[in-house]
Amino acid sequence: MCDDTGKSYPLPSVRRMPMYLQYLKQVRERGRCCVSCTHIAEHLHLNSIQVRKDLAMTGIVGRPKTGYEVEPLIEAVEEFLGWNNTHDAFLVGVGSLGRALLGYEGFHEYGLEIIAGFEKAVDKIGQTIHGKEILDIETLPGLARRMHVQIGILTVPAQAAQEVTDLMVGAGIRAIWNYTPVQLDVPPAVVVEDVRMAASFAVLSLRLTELVKCEKSPVGPSVD
Amino acid sequence: MCDDTGKSYPLPSVRRMPMYLQYLKQVRERGRCCVSCTHIAEHLHLNSIQVRKDLAMTGIVGRPKTGYEVEPLIEAVEEFLGWNNTHDAFLVGVGSLGRALLGYEGFHEYGLEIIAGFEKAVDKIGQTIHGKEILDIETLPGLARRMHVQIGILTVPAQAAQEVTDLMVGAGIRAIWNYTPVQLDVPPAVVVEDVRMAASFAVLSLRLTELVKCEKSPVGPSVD
Repeated sequence: MCDDTGKSYPLPSVRRMPMYLQYLKQVRERGRCCVSCTHIAEHLHLNSIQVRKDLAMTGIVGRPKTGYEVEPLIEAVEEFLGWNNTHDAFLVGVGSLGRALLGYEGFHEYGLEIIAGFEKAVDKIGQTIHGKEILDIETLPGLARRMHVQIGILTVPAQAAQEVTDLMVGAGIRAIWNYTPVQLDVPPAVVVEDVRMAASFAVLSLRLTELVKCEKSPVGPSVD
Repeated sequence: MCDDTGKSYPLPSVRRMPMYLQYLKQVRERGRCCVSCTHIAEHLHLNSIQVRKDLAMTGIVGRPKTGYEVEPLIEAVEEFLGWNNTHDAFLVGVGSLGRALLGYEGFHEYGLEIIAGFEKAVDKIGQTIHGKEILDIETLPGLARRMHVQIGILTVPAQAAQEVTDLMVGAGIRAIWNYTPVQLDVPPAVVVEDVRMAASFAVLSLRLTELVKCEKSPVGPSVD
């Protein structure tokens, strides 16, 4: 974080912001102009003190009786996350996951726009997938610089992950959204966020395995 | 966790297991039979004491000079996670993300097999997407029970998330892999794991925004 603000936001709070946003949009759709902190907390199964603290990060504070005004709060959350501006991104690795993400419309809600896909495989270069052109990976550095693209989405096979990361960093990409299971090495001026679908499934399958084991054991499941 | 074992594994350690697995498979491909803890730690930018502790959860302990035997360690990690058995899953919600996940071949590495997709939308029912049949959501309860499917992958729009979850739970689904931004309500005998792509992108975009702000500020970026 930088010297002049010294601000640093707690990660779990940041991670909850899209949940608030999604709920606030639901509230707006129902035509309501205000919502209380308690109401948000109940709906999202959170503690209301936590909700108040989280939302205060955006600079908006609720009023004692009416709570939050929905529309300004939505705008404040989007501004806080930087989702009110479009973020152009390049995606590298058009395998089955990359192809999938190229077609995922939900990214628009985050202000994320994938403007092209990149590949090494000659048979994929030149294709158009979900309306997006697939270009030769070798053209990425020039294009990223010319178009000031700051976000790279990494969906290559694990073995290629670091090499492609180095290419992205060299091309001026500042933020890498990493869908590979690889721990990437980047300079301090570049941020990486790992999605780790495998890690998430590891937790799910281990918990399921334990649940089933418990029920089969002579002692039976514990009572919560 | 159940009475007879009392075991509970630290989540960050569980989440690292797929990373070990992926690296161990790379080592195996290079034809090596053994690998040291230090070597694994260096490659994955982890602390070697942590690596030793994590891998000990599988019941395998490295030897002082040779380290770990690669093949038995791979098997032990897969068994620990339950990835040596196939996990059949149903996916509900064949929008752009659901469609994507139906075609993602990487799931095979986790032993995860999506056997069908389910939809409410009449125009999607009956289609075959990436070799998988799209069925009427109303047939899910009967099929889940008959086929003993325990895993449900949730890729519906946010507004439908809780309703479909209730349907899955009623159908005997024990583990829900939640790709929606909704906090789901489930009974204690059901496990939920959230992927939260939006939360991950929130962290990435906020960090990027801060990085850029810092550099534009008169003070300039801080030195790490």
